[in-house]
Amino acid sequence: MCQLLGMNCNTPTDIVFSFTGFATRGGRTDEHKDGWGIAFFEGKGVRHFVDHQAAIDSPIAELIKRYPIKSTNVIAHIRKATQGVIALENCHPFIREAWGCQWVFAHNGDLKDFEPQLDGSFLPIGSTDSERAFCYIMQCLRTRFGMHMPTLEELRTFLAGLCNQIAKHGTFNMMLSNGGVLFAHCSTKLHYIERQHPFNTAALSDEDVSVDFAQVTTPKDRVAVIVTEPLTSNEHWTAIQSGEMKVFVDGRALV
Amino acid sequence: MCQLLGMNCNTPTDIVFSFTGFATRGGRTDEHKDGWGIAFFEGKGVRHFVDHQAAIDSPIAELIKRYPIKSTNVIAHIRKATQGVIALENCHPFIREAWGCQWVFAHNGDLKDFEPQLDGSFLPIGSTDSERAFCYIMQCLRTRFGMHMPTLEELRTFLAGLCNQIAKHGTFNMMLSNGGVLFAHCSTKLHYIERQHPFNTAALSDEDVSVDFAQVTTPKDRVAVIVTEPLTSNEHWTAIQSGEMKVFVDGRALV
Repeated sequence: MCQLLGMNCNTPTDIVFSFTGFATRGGRTDEHKDGWGIAFFEGKGVRHFVDHQAAIDSPIAELIKRYPIKSTNVIAHIRKATQGVIALENCHPFIREAWGCQWVFAHNGDLKDFEPQLDGSFLPIGSTDSERAFCYIMQCLRTRFGMHMPTLEELRTFLAGLCNQIAKHGTFNMMLSNGGVLFAHCSTKLHYIERQHPFNTAALSDEDVSVDFAQVTTPKDRVAVIVTEPLTSNEHWTAIQSGEMKVFVDGRALV
Repeated sequence: MCQLLGMNCNTPTDIVFSFTGFATRGGRTDEHKDGWGIAFFEGKGVRHFVDHQAAIDSPIAELIKRYPIKSTNVIAHIRKATQGVIALENCHPFIREAWGCQWVFAHNGDLKDFEPQLDGSFLPIGSTDSERAFCYIMQCLRTRFGMHMPTLEELRTFLAGLCNQIAKHGTFNMMLSNGGVLFAHCSTKLHYIERQHPFNTAALSDEDVSVDFAQVTTPKDRVAVIVTEPLTSNEHWTAIQSGEMKVFVDGRALV
């Protein structure tokens, strides 16, 4: 299995604190050592880093821990291979373009007997069930909505149904973002927290590191962090329910 | 205008030497300071780095100069903005998937009145003429070849015609790779060199750096480097002719 980390904010924010704890699980405090990846939206552009080394040994992960890239939407993944060999093309997150936007996707879980018919509009490059599911989602979106980018409400309804359909094949915790919104579907395990004014100090569970967010934020900032297992030991994380999809916009889960 | 750098090899090779000279043109020895990018194929996977800072100031460019990523196909670009603002989504190289492969593209030049009709299968994310041309190329490829990936000979013939058609709109020096082959079309300026046994020492034009390739290669290695302006001062570079497309496979230009 793997672990997922997402961030959605109303103002560009760096993910150094959360990524530091998360990357530690990629080979030190946990067994997810078969590669990792992270994608940062900056406007419509994306910085995409993938590596088939363990995050804990990766010079690129080191760079990200030191170099604060500010982003409003981030998706990261550490991999423990279940399907697909250890190779760069099997590292999440995966990216495709649709409607002139980048779509970034990562998955935690394992799908059995999942062989959807793909029409060629989006095809997997690697051999994971995850990328197959992503291509299927993008194909279904394009088939359903054609040339016109769906509204947020249309996307939300359609994706919630589609994720529950895919989840019949196994565990399907996933995150998907187009840079404006972050969708998080929970099949077995996913937690989130919304940080906003007044900000407090948070302490990582996986490293002896704390940060006082009050020192690095303004009162109007809002940041949602979504992750497989809570990253901090002194904050309250909310579990997303099995079968539920949360939609994050401007650092807040829509109700 | 911009500058292009490509590498095609028969064995995974690092591009540290060539990139060091090339990146220096991104703000020090030349004026290309409006962003840069590089894509490395590793098997079917791609490492893609883009930055809207000048290459000379970029911590990610620093990492690439220090950390030898070995690849058989690389495309890099330093940008001097002509069309499209300075933004991450306007940094080359651009990537799209087709037939389950990544396609990586970068362009040097400026296209006038180039507004091809795009059917939605590949749409630009940013606002450059370059990404528009890339999307048009991918759309034409898919329209022409449908679900079946074309052979190298089909690709070569089709792309050569298409590039000359696009070049009617202005300067269109471009590189395109799917990880197996690298296409380089010259409209005004592009040079290449093929290095093979017996290897010699090469000295960069833009930095006081030399490397003795005999020390870091085996006799069977072959490496082709393609670039806007020759990178070394003591080797013979071949100019690609205007209107000509060279196809590089396994470190050698096909005849």
